[in-house]
Amino acid sequence: MNFQDISEQRRAINFFDPEQEVSQESLTRMIELAARTPSSFNLQPWNLVVVREQEERETLKALAWNQDKVAEAPVVLIVLADRKGWQEGHPVVEQNWQQMLATGGMQPEQRDWFLGAAKSLYNWNEQADLAFAVKNAGFFAMSLMYAATSLGLETHPMDGFDHEGVRRTFQIPDHYWLPLLLAVGYRKPGLELQPAKWRKRVDEIVVRFDGGGA
Amino acid sequence: MNFQDISEQRRAINFFDPEQEVSQESLTRMIELAARTPSSFNLQPWNLVVVREQEERETLKALAWNQDKVAEAPVVLIVLADRKGWQEGHPVVEQNWQQMLATGGMQPEQRDWFLGAAKSLYNWNEQADLAFAVKNAGFFAMSLMYAATSLGLETHPMDGFDHEGVRRTFQIPDHYWLPLLLAVGYRKPGLELQPAKWRKRVDEIVVRFDGGGA
Repeated sequence: MNFQDISEQRRAINFFDPEQEVSQESLTRMIELAARTPSSFNLQPWNLVVVREQEERETLKALAWNQDKVAEAPVVLIVLADRKGWQEGHPVVEQNWQQMLATGGMQPEQRDWFLGAAKSLYNWNEQADLAFAVKNAGFFAMSLMYAATSLGLETHPMDGFDHEGVRRTFQIPDHYWLPLLLAVGYRKPGLELQPAKWRKRVDEIVVRFDGGGA
Repeated sequence: MNFQDISEQRRAINFFDPEQEVSQESLTRMIELAARTPSSFNLQPWNLVVVREQEERETLKALAWNQDKVAEAPVVLIVLADRKGWQEGHPVVEQNWQQMLATGGMQPEQRDWFLGAAKSLYNWNEQADLAFAVKNAGFFAMSLMYAATSLGLETHPMDGFDHEGVRRTFQIPDHYWLPLLLAVGYRKPGLELQPAKWRKRVDEIVVRFDGGGA
C-alpha cells in the first residue's frame, strides 16, 4: 500500500469486531514500525500501556465516557508523553549520550553542552516540557495509526476520558501526560463506513499574518 | 513505496541541495496528503507558514541557532498549533458544526452539548488547550514528513529556535504555539547518510506500573 492509499484507508473506526483478536505479532510489528518515529534530540519521550484483558477494557470504558469501542476493540493503547524525557539521569537521555560517544557524534567534554541544550529546548518556560512531550508523542501516535493501517488493522484515537481516573487506575506516574487512548482492532463485519469527514483545504491551512509569502 | 519503506527512508536530513527548488505542485500535494490527518473532534488545529524567500530563510536561520539547513532548504514550514481551535466562534468549530448538521450527525438542539463537549475536552485544566493543540499538530507534522518521503522529498523537523523571535518576525498571534520548524527539500548531491540513530525497542516502549498486563 502506498502512502496515498494508507492516508485514505486510515479511518477512525467506531465499531470493532470483539471476536477478532489482534495477535501479539501484529501488535509488536505495529509498534516496531512506529518506533522509527523521529523525535527532538532523539529523546523518544513516549511509552505505551497495552490494555488487553476484557476486565481492564471494561474499567477503561467506564473512564472513557462509556464508549463501547473501548471494550469492543481487542486492544486499547494508553499513549504516554514523558515530560521529564530531557532530564539528566533519564535512561533515554543517558542512552543517547552513550550512543553519541560510541559513534563519535560527541566527545566526553561536551556533556555539559549536551545536557544544557536539552534543558534549554524543553525547559525554557513552564509549558515547554509539556509541549515537548506531547508533540513527540503525537508524532509517535500518528505513526502507530499509519503502521496499523499498513498491517490491515483499524484504529480510533480518543480524547474523551478521565485523565486522572486513568492515571490512578493504571498507576501512571505524574511526569507523564496522557495525550490519547488508541483503540486497535478489526472492523466489525458488515460495517459500512460513512464518507470521510471534511478537511481544511490547503489554502485554509497555509496562512500569513505579516503580509509576506507568495 | 509501502509504509515500511517510507518509515525507513524518512530521515532527518542535515544537508539540503540549495539549487533544487520544491515545486509549488509538490508542496501542495504534500500538504493535501497530510490534510487527511485525524484530529480531536475533527478540529484540525493546525496551520502552516510557508517560508520560501531566500531573505526570509536567512532571517529564520538567525533565529534558529544559525543552522545552515534553514537557509539551504528551499522551503521551511513553521508549524502552528492553535490553542483556541475548540472555542465557539472559531471558523473551524463553526464549519464542523455546519457539516454535522448537514450530514445529520447532529441536530440544531445539540449545539450546547457540542460546544460543551469540546470545552470539557480541551479546557479542563490550564494546560489542556496546549496539549490539545500540540498533540494534533504533532499528528499533522508527522503526516507531512511521511507524505514528503512518499513524494521523494526530504525533511528535517527542528526544535532549536527562538520561539518569541519567530513569533515577532512573522507576526504570529499568541494563541498559536510553535511546535516545530520543518525544513523541506532535496538531499545535497553526493551526501552519504550516517546509519539511522538507535531507537527504543518494543519492550522499552511498552510499560506497566501496576503489575498488570501480559
